[in-house]
Amino acid sequence: MQIAFAPDELRTVLQPLRVQGGTTEIIRGIAALGEAVPGDLSFLSNPKYRPDVPGSKASVVLLPESYQGEPGPNQMYLRVANTSVAVAQLCTRLEQAMWPRPEAGVHPSAVVDPAAVVAATATIGPLCVVEAGAKIGERCYLQAQNFIGRGARVGDDCWLMAGSLVATECVLGDRVRLQPGAIVGADGFGYDFLQGKHVKIPQVGTVVLGDDVEIGANTTLDRARFSSTYIGEGSKLDNLVQVGHNVKMGKHCLIVSQAGIAGSTTLADYVVLGGQVGVAGHLELGKGVQVGAQAGINTSWPAGTTLRGTPAMPYMDEQRITVLRNRLPDLFKRVAELEKKLG
Amino acid sequence: MQIAFAPDELRTVLQPLRVQGGTTEIIRGIAALGEAVPGDLSFLSNPKYRPDVPGSKASVVLLPESYQGEPGPNQMYLRVANTSVAVAQLCTRLEQAMWPRPEAGVHPSAVVDPAAVVAATATIGPLCVVEAGAKIGERCYLQAQNFIGRGARVGDDCWLMAGSLVATECVLGDRVRLQPGAIVGADGFGYDFLQGKHVKIPQVGTVVLGDDVEIGANTTLDRARFSSTYIGEGSKLDNLVQVGHNVKMGKHCLIVSQAGIAGSTTLADYVVLGGQVGVAGHLELGKGVQVGAQAGINTSWPAGTTLRGTPAMPYMDEQRITVLRNRLPDLFKRVAELEKKLG
Amino acid sequence: MQIAFAPDELRTVLQPLRVQGGTTEIIRGIAALGEAVPGDLSFLSNPKYRPDVPGSKASVVLLPESYQGEPGPNQMYLRVANTSVAVAQLCTRLEQAMWPRPEAGVHPSAVVDPAAVVAATATIGPLCVVEAGAKIGERCYLQAQNFIGRGARVGDDCWLMAGSLVATECVLGDRVRLQPGAIVGADGFGYDFLQGKHVKIPQVGTVVLGDDVEIGANTTLDRARFSSTYIGEGSKLDNLVQVGHNVKMGKHCLIVSQAGIAGSTTLADYVVLGGQVGVAGHLELGKGVQVGAQAGINTSWPAGTTLRGTPAMPYMDEQRITVLRNRLPDLFKRVAELEKKLG
Repeated sequence: MQIAFAPDELRTVLQPLRVQGGTTEIIRGIAALGEAVPGDLSFLSNPKYRPDVPGSKASVVLLPESYQGEPGPNQMYLRVANTSVAVAQLCTRLEQAMWPRPEAGVHPSAVVDPAAVVAATATIGPLCVVEAGAKIGERCYLQAQNFIGRGARVGDDCWLMAGSLVATECVLGDRVRLQPGAIVGADGFGYDFLQGKHVKIPQVGTVVLGDDVEIGANTTLDRARFSSTYIGEGSKLDNLVQVGHNVKMGKHCLIVSQAGIAGSTTLADYVVLGGQVGVAGHLELGKGVQVGAQAGINTSWPAGTTLRGTPAMPYMDEQRITVLRNRLPDLFKRVAELEKKLG
Repeated sequence: MQIAFAPDELRTVLQPLRVQGGTTEIIRGIAALGEAVPGDLSFLSNPKYRPDVPGSKASVVLLPESYQGEPGPNQMYLRVANTSVAVAQLCTRLEQAMWPRPEAGVHPSAVVDPAAVVAATATIGPLCVVEAGAKIGERCYLQAQNFIGRGARVGDDCWLMAGSLVATECVLGDRVRLQPGAIVGADGFGYDFLQGKHVKIPQVGTVVLGDDVEIGANTTLDRARFSSTYIGEGSKLDNLVQVGHNVKMGKHCLIVSQAGIAGSTTLADYVVLGGQVGVAGHLELGKGVQVGAQAGINTSWPAGTTLRGTPAMPYMDEQRITVLRNRLPDLFKRVAELEKKLG
Repeated sequence: MQIAFAPDELRTVLQPLRVQGGTTEIIRGIAALGEAVPGDLSFLSNPKYRPDVPGSKASVVLLPESYQGEPGPNQMYLRVANTSVAVAQLCTRLEQAMWPRPEAGVHPSAVVDPAAVVAATATIGPLCVVEAGAKIGERCYLQAQNFIGRGARVGDDCWLMAGSLVATECVLGDRVRLQPGAIVGADGFGYDFLQGKHVKIPQVGTVVLGDDVEIGANTTLDRARFSSTYIGEGSKLDNLVQVGHNVKMGKHCLIVSQAGIAGSTTLADYVVLGGQVGVAGHLELGKGVQVGAQAGINTSWPAGTTLRGTPAMPYMDEQRITVLRNRLPDLFKRVAELEKKLG
């Protein structure tokens, strides 16, 4: 990173309760206590890492007041009320340095249709395409090479990283983030089988993302057959996730990488799907359902269920069966023994 | 959607057998009977939704002649011979409105090598790259930001959505559709292990897609080591599918999202792979083999087999074993009981 | 392919020990013995294909001296010391023809920030974006439509195929290859759950790739929360792989398509993950661990372990349990039999 904080600057940003020692190093990175090298800042938030503090090579260490100890040579301890909050402050500062708010305006290499509406405060980066009828809201940042299709609407304060795409007529709420390569509005996968051929069913619906949704890199969201595929406010999707047509996802769901949700399935609020989970089509998962990694869901489940396995079942059942399955070699022996006894 | 049908227009498009009632609403969406709001059109095709008709808020409802009932206030019933066909007609009309046939020609921002051949009737959208020796057929539509590599050939009437890519020397038949981010012709994954290192084996084959193939968003098709990876006529691949080098896929296959097919495997015609299925390399799946979601195939199977599970086995066997596995707690108890009796 | 080798040219390239027969065909493809047509070159490397030689329609066949036989009409046999090496020589030649070293320089349609540093010997293809502070090394080839973010560094002799992306501050070693759509440096998936909402944790670390790393098409590598996600020298990742934030991967690993590695997991050198494998977060896999396709790893494993299944266990254990599981129908019968005997 080309980030550089002088020790004095850190004191200004973090407003520590107390300072011990000092360092001549410029801070160029953040690292765990045990991995840090001179020039790094580190911190103690989880008490189990307390023994790593004295030997840490970090030039600056953020510590709670409760920690007992003195810095080494050319090392500075900053005592703060809450180390996690202090690290977050610093990371936000770093984030602003890494992705500075670009100036508003349309890059001359971007291709913006005259019939598109771009807010004066928005930034359209190099080599973006914005088609006719599209609307880009206030303070949006399209990083580069984005595609916004005909009639699509992007709310205010959205960040679209390079190469992410919003297809025809799709709608983004406010503060939506698309990671690179995210695709909002591919065609749903629907065909009629007629005379030995799969004939495409037109997919003329859209995708609608609520406010504060984040979509991971190369994740694909299919447009509805008609009406909308919907992702509720505050839901976060990781990379390489697949969302089929007409899926309705509630608010504040977490969908971990490479999970897939087949068409017309409904997820209530606060559902969590682990990595590589598959959910079949036309199902309903109730509020707060939690699904372990790689599970396969082939039926609906009520609110609050914790699921695991393929086909998925409640965690305790699955756990018990997995344990017994692993004792099969023993069971076969016991049965053979019984058979011997009974002649 | 910005789609708007006046009621009269609908009558012209759909040519109903009979009209009941009427509406002053402009139709701006299509929705299921139970979800529709005023301004929507709805329809009854599956008889199980018959009870939803009387309460539907749809302004226009497409119904078969056999349905008994009268529209509500400001509601129009259109009686048609086949509601599914009528909806399809309407969707095709909507599709044409959402993705109107663009004018032929090369967008001034596209970079087309002078040694490429682009049909006069084709449309090359903004910021596309077409390398030397590539050929683009009649009436093709490259939406935007597509890449067509050296010597690649795209047949007639193909639709390449934004950001899809056809790499060097790869070949598309006629009427092929690539969804956004689809990649035709990445390198196959092949290395020789020499002196502790993986040394790349050049991948100098191509990918060939038959007519009427559709490739989903962010799906990746690897070029052959030499000769061709092949996808047969009419096969449809969903999003995020992986096809390894030298795979040969027959005609009219359906490959659901996130499935993966390893190198040199052959699928006959009409094979169906469910979501997240994995097929190992160098296998053969016969005509019409059907594989349930998340299954893992590690051996070849003859025509007509229905498979499930990992490692996959015929559906009935897998079903029986899954049932018995779930009865393991009971079996352990029964064996313990027998042991007690036998002392 | 538009590749064409006259028979004489082949003799020059391959320097055969001995030539038998001859052909008037121009060689336009390479194919397996049983699949070759006139105009193809074929070869015998695996002895099990020896019976395919006499009937092969290939115009040119590469053979070891040990093979006994005569070419057919209009067919040429070239006897070489090592057919695999000869094929590799030819493929390298073909590779150079398919992807000729482009001339150095920046395409006029590329958008390169004046504050970026591009080596004079590098090629920046059409419609690439190189942001401020980025460095592109000697002889690099950015094919087209690539994005290189602020402060990112690309080493010497890297090949970035069309549409691949290196985000802000990420670092590539020398001779790195990115397949189309590969994403280096998406945000890690990290949120704090505060007052019912998922609040984004800034992801201000980077991704660092060692020398000779290859990243597959549409594969996604997440940047670290801070410090770096790391891929060791010589490791090769297939298509659609997910690597979470803060993963540390050793040297010369092979990660097959659609595998996923969750955050903060460490892989030592020479680890092999099969297709669709999932590895949970915060684990350690020792040197040379090998994991079968679709396995799910939920605990750490020492060097040299071969794993299979979900949850994964050592191969022999998993094999035994799978066999017994498939004998469950028999076991249930045997227990019922015992119960009958015991009344």
